[in-house]
Amino acid sequence: MDLWFNEEFVPGLRVSFRVTKTLYQGKSRFQKIDVIETERFGRVLLLDGLTMFTSQDEFVYHEMIVHPPLLAHPNPKRVCVVGGGDGGVIREILKHPEVESVVLCEIDEEVIRVCKEFFPDMGASFSDPRVTVQIGDAAEYIRPQKDAFDVILGDTTDPIGPAVVLFEEPFYVSVKKALKPKGIFVAQIESVFIYGDIIPKVTRALRKNFQDCRLYGATVPTYPTGYWNFVWASDNVNPFDVNQERQRRICATCRYYTPEHQRAAFVLPAFAAELQA
Amino acid sequence: MDLWFNEEFVPGLRVSFRVTKTLYQGKSRFQKIDVIETERFGRVLLLDGLTMFTSQDEFVYHEMIVHPPLLAHPNPKRVCVVGGGDGGVIREILKHPEVESVVLCEIDEEVIRVCKEFFPDMGASFSDPRVTVQIGDAAEYIRPQKDAFDVILGDTTDPIGPAVVLFEEPFYVSVKKALKPKGIFVAQIESVFIYGDIIPKVTRALRKNFQDCRLYGATVPTYPTGYWNFVWASDNVNPFDVNQERQRRICATCRYYTPEHQRAAFVLPAFAAELQA
Repeated sequence: MDLWFNEEFVPGLRVSFRVTKTLYQGKSRFQKIDVIETERFGRVLLLDGLTMFTSQDEFVYHEMIVHPPLLAHPNPKRVCVVGGGDGGVIREILKHPEVESVVLCEIDEEVIRVCKEFFPDMGASFSDPRVTVQIGDAAEYIRPQKDAFDVILGDTTDPIGPAVVLFEEPFYVSVKKALKPKGIFVAQIESVFIYGDIIPKVTRALRKNFQDCRLYGATVPTYPTGYWNFVWASDNVNPFDVNQERQRRICATCRYYTPEHQRAAFVLPAFAAELQA
Repeated sequence: MDLWFNEEFVPGLRVSFRVTKTLYQGKSRFQKIDVIETERFGRVLLLDGLTMFTSQDEFVYHEMIVHPPLLAHPNPKRVCVVGGGDGGVIREILKHPEVESVVLCEIDEEVIRVCKEFFPDMGASFSDPRVTVQIGDAAEYIRPQKDAFDVILGDTTDPIGPAVVLFEEPFYVSVKKALKPKGIFVAQIESVFIYGDIIPKVTRALRKNFQDCRLYGATVPTYPTGYWNFVWASDNVNPFDVNQERQRRICATCRYYTPEHQRAAFVLPAFAAELQA
């Protein structure tokens, strides 16, 4: 049997993986959850039929959502993750010895359970004593917080379904209030090559609440277009001013991120400049 | 009829376009040539069933194979293109007022004819008086040349079939001899994410002939993995030392390349560093 998983993220463009084994098929209160084994990219987590990550290239996305903001922050003690139930983001966060606590707000407990079972390399991070898991709506968790976090990371599904509110201005008002004065917010925001109207909507909303808002990106082979973007929001934190000793230690553990990426990741295709203006 | 073109460049990973129209199907002495109209990426040229470019994102590849070397060269008067029968590379080369002549060595006349007909935006460059077309084997054309070119660009198909010799050391010996002392050679070289053994083989061979050999890259959504690489070879030409006035004029015409790409494009994933060492 020649089995293929097809994803048509953009109408008319499909990315497909040959499937060697279906490891898990389930349904939580929120979404369908599947784990497949593929010929080329190892294990793949699918939520509602969309690729969340593959075990072969998840390192790019997870290193790049975490290390640029954590290294730009002089002393990231308290970090909050919105989503991130697979554990990949906290695995990278915990590499930073400055971090004293991580709160992970995941709406779907089943995602955590499935990832602990099928992606032990990522799921193992949940047993670290610095990690607290909040099962529930991240927007509700963050709303009452004040001056609570140094960095907040949005490792969410795309802005369809339950994650929609996490790409809207009321949420960003809460995020701003929940951050300490030198805080940084970073979130995944699809790709400038296929953004539709989500990227300018998000950057406009963030600009009302933060003095600095930019995009950066990374090359993730199994995401649609292969180029994925992140939005960065802060008040006057220079993303390029990092402690080289801290950076060297982190780089020693990385397969994608290098010291030069701290600046190069912010270089966007010319046509995308207006999306962050 | 729901028609899809599927390309399985890497076993187990497929990229597919929905096809709205088949515009041309032919066969030259060398290869099958097809032109399809797709829902999402406009017209696509296929050679032997493999995507060469789409009209929607060809600008990324063509700007990035041309402008980094031409801007790093202080006065690129004579340029040679190996392959490039679609005309996209010469379109970008001709933007540089320093260029006095371009020789394009294409083995397959049919590719030029088909591209002039179906991709007029690229094919139009052939009528520029600075352009000379040499139909035939590029390796044979370059072999007797001496101190003839400032820049040589390898815009070839991948190293299977007729293009194999263009990725081997004897060809690079000819290229070195054909270049003037401050000359630069740049060629497409697939992706570090799926390189197999071609990239280290090529960089090793180039290093024997040039003092400096590096890789750079660009994000091309419709190429396998979305991240495509180029190899750069020269003797002590600094890729980052460019005339800002010339660069500004070129950037005014670009949709991908910006001044910051001249440096950022050379920042590779950490795991790829050893491929150019």
